[in-house]
Amino acid sequence: MPGIRGLPRFWLLKSGTWLSLVCANTPKTVYIYHMKKLLSVAAFSLAALAAAAQSDDSIFIRRLADEVLTHSTAYENLRVLTKQVGGRLAGSPAMVKAEAWGLKAMQAAGPDKAWLQECMVPHWVRGGRDLLLAERLVSSTGKLNKWSTRYLDVLALGNSVGTNGALRAPIVEVRNFAELEAKKDSLKGKIVFYNYKFNPTFVKTFQSYGDAVVYRGQGPSRAARYGAAGVIVRSMSHSTDNNPHTGSTNYNDSLPKIPAVALGLRDADWLDSTMRTTVVYATMTTGGHFLPDTIGHNVIGELRGSQFPNQYITIGGHLDSWDPAEGAHDDGAGVVQTMEVLRALRALGYKPRHSIRFVLFANEENGTRGGRKYAEEAKAKGEQHILALESDEGGFTPRGFGFTGLEAQYQKMLAWKDLLAPYGTGEIIRGGGGSDISPLAKELNTPLCSFIPDSQRYFDYHHARNDIFENVNKRELELGALNIAALIYLVDKYGL
Amino acid sequence: MPGIRGLPRFWLLKSGTWLSLVCANTPKTVYIYHMKKLLSVAAFSLAALAAAAQSDDSIFIRRLADEVLTHSTAYENLRVLTKQVGGRLAGSPAMVKAEAWGLKAMQAAGPDKAWLQECMVPHWVRGGRDLLLAERLVSSTGKLNKWSTRYLDVLALGNSVGTNGALRAPIVEVRNFAELEAKKDSLKGKIVFYNYKFNPTFVKTFQSYGDAVVYRGQGPSRAARYGAAGVIVRSMSHSTDNNPHTGSTNYNDSLPKIPAVALGLRDADWLDSTMRTTVVYATMTTGGHFLPDTIGHNVIGELRGSQFPNQYITIGGHLDSWDPAEGAHDDGAGVVQTMEVLRALRALGYKPRHSIRFVLFANEENGTRGGRKYAEEAKAKGEQHILALESDEGGFTPRGFGFTGLEAQYQKMLAWKDLLAPYGTGEIIRGGGGSDISPLAKELNTPLCSFIPDSQRYFDYHHARNDIFENVNKRELELGALNIAALIYLVDKYGL
Repeated sequence: MPGIRGLPRFWLLKSGTWLSLVCANTPKTVYIYHMKKLLSVAAFSLAALAAAAQSDDSIFIRRLADEVLTHSTAYENLRVLTKQVGGRLAGSPAMVKAEAWGLKAMQAAGPDKAWLQECMVPHWVRGGRDLLLAERLVSSTGKLNKWSTRYLDVLALGNSVGTNGALRAPIVEVRNFAELEAKKDSLKGKIVFYNYKFNPTFVKTFQSYGDAVVYRGQGPSRAARYGAAGVIVRSMSHSTDNNPHTGSTNYNDSLPKIPAVALGLRDADWLDSTMRTTVVYATMTTGGHFLPDTIGHNVIGELRGSQFPNQYITIGGHLDSWDPAEGAHDDGAGVVQTMEVLRALRALGYKPRHSIRFVLFANEENGTRGGRKYAEEAKAKGEQHILALESDEGGFTPRGFGFTGLEAQYQKMLAWKDLLAPYGTGEIIRGGGGSDISPLAKELNTPLCSFIPDSQRYFDYHHARNDIFENVNKRELELGALNIAALIYLVDKYGL
Repeated sequence: MPGIRGLPRFWLLKSGTWLSLVCANTPKTVYIYHMKKLLSVAAFSLAALAAAAQSDDSIFIRRLADEVLTHSTAYENLRVLTKQVGGRLAGSPAMVKAEAWGLKAMQAAGPDKAWLQECMVPHWVRGGRDLLLAERLVSSTGKLNKWSTRYLDVLALGNSVGTNGALRAPIVEVRNFAELEAKKDSLKGKIVFYNYKFNPTFVKTFQSYGDAVVYRGQGPSRAARYGAAGVIVRSMSHSTDNNPHTGSTNYNDSLPKIPAVALGLRDADWLDSTMRTTVVYATMTTGGHFLPDTIGHNVIGELRGSQFPNQYITIGGHLDSWDPAEGAHDDGAGVVQTMEVLRALRALGYKPRHSIRFVLFANEENGTRGGRKYAEEAKAKGEQHILALESDEGGFTPRGFGFTGLEAQYQKMLAWKDLLAPYGTGEIIRGGGGSDISPLAKELNTPLCSFIPDSQRYFDYHHARNDIFENVNKRELELGALNIAALIYLVDKYGL
């Protein structure tokens, strides 16, 4: 029986293979005795090895944490991106500026190589200031005969057509699609106001978003089907302010395209309450339109793997943002965290086993062309991608990771929970991904992971003017980066 | 063997008592057979009962959540407290206003009774604006002979004596107490600048606070021991702004009391960097002093227990705050959450088994007289307190509860983890309490619990001018209240 004393080498082989090494000529009882002994020693030693590995991992992750919490450049990078580049919608001059900044910042983080990956991107422009003037009939000398006007705070939805001058029409309020259907015969020429509330009873706000966002996505075309001339959508947010929240709408190409705006919550409540007692007309003025597609780029940094150079781990966020804000949480945070993971691994002299790609994706907001290009090229080159992770839920305090992949892979991630929990990401849940990495799953069946920060404040800023640098907390941003770095380290070390 | 079919009544008795009901005359094998059968059915049925109980609890907690997330008055209460009362240090006119508001707000939340509990409180006043003028020698025509001045942003530490006019002296910088000791012979008549950094590598910021706060607490007296004339303390914060953070200092009565101020972080870094190249004098002007003790009050609401009226559960926060801010996170949040728990339980028609007290404590910040009074009176009346919980770590997104008590009690709390985790408080850790409730542990050996919200941003605002209403998020505040309500419900239902 080799190796009862000390650590037998065959214990290092994969499980299932080492038992065959036990001598087959041994009498049964002795065999059983030795088997038991061997098994118990093996179990003990495997446990000891696992504990030692856990301890090594815990030490390395602690070093990552110290590195990020004391020397991170993420916050300063975010300041430059938000304050010197600002909003950076696909196709805009700011996009070009952001890409140039991104490549420089990526190179500064220390990859083995960095490059731009070209892709065509849509080029939607807002075309001026979006306006909505509400006119309501009010009483004068006892009669409902005087028009009172008030500007409501709106932002045209992304991809929306413009009003081509001013569009004046009566408003019809519906609380949901069922009410739209009930009122379908009275919508011709009207402006439909979808006043669907962001559900406060979902604890995780992304659930409220998933629930409400259909009104932004499908609302305009569903109203156009019944002849509506325009659409106003209640903003998808819990915020206590009046900032409208924009975001893409998706027209059904078989129906007329009608202009659509998002309305701030206070104004939405005002409009709702006003319409209970009187008729309200809206005059919408928006100028959204598409220019020809133009050239955009993913910014990519790579650390070459020492053992499995042809197996890739991708982590990323998206470089583009909506135009009215600085895109600080969405997704400046993911962008600078991605580069911080690279910088921190480099600073500790970490040599990855797998190749790791750090990607700032183009055009997530209104086309996902960057994510699609990345996956298409990976497929064309026959690349093997073992995991793709995205950070696109804001730079808030970390809570966990979401995972989509095989059960065995998920169980492997769950086993790392105790290593990650001290840094905030103790919640490893089923279901994860991101717009930019989902094409990888589609093209290459790549397992997907999303970094999950706390969701409570995300939709206070999402696609709104106040998504600015000042609303990102330095430490929360850094903690996100270090948790992602820790997970990437574990995936790289142990595979998935 | 009664009750094999159906649910035998004795399974409802406490564990350990029902086995004695098995007939003692049964032959051993039959006995064992029946025992096994009984045990397995019992185990199954107990599991089913437990599952049913979990399900009932989960439904009730969901109702609590819906109630709080849709009808909470916590945020509006906080607005009124912060904007109409404002900073409310013990002894101040604002304290009196806060108590009157607190009693009214408590009554509105629907207790069986509400009252004020009188206690004497210290009455420290700031006595004017705190100033610190730094003068440094700079070069002029090639010689270090010109004084340049700059005001640094400071706040006198709470309980600090004043400078009695202006105090001008050279500054001596020390990074820690070891350096203070090393420089002890050169401190006479000087102003000591403790530049101890808030450690960024602790993930939980309360650890950094515990590590650094000794400089605020003991720093002045330790410097006075060596003849220093005044003290400047680097603020205990990770913030990126320059707001100084005040807080109590504790003089050693056997040493001279010297004035002490907290310095904003940017100014602290400027001072540190300036002192590397030149000598710096400070002119401190502060006016802190004590007026005679005055009358303050704890505000108490009570729900009377239906089964155990003489067993109390206390939950609370503190009504007082430092003077320069609105005390929104510290501890307006705890105050309004306490009353929200009461309101929500009432709104659902919940009849508690134990008596529950909702307490807005007086004078946490510079004396803890309210907490001491509460415990003294509880002891004098022979009250039995089964748990006291405090919310005094800000109105941030919930993460867990900390507990100090017996291991069996802790295990009982741990068993509720799955019920609480969906709402944010999945981390049930050892070690919990609060300044206001710790006298209960001392006097009555009461188990203590602290509500633990995410700690990353707390010390950005703690004791600083920016601890204002606008920096509290409505949903995070409400989630805190509902998690506390859920835990209190479980403790009330199952005991501890």
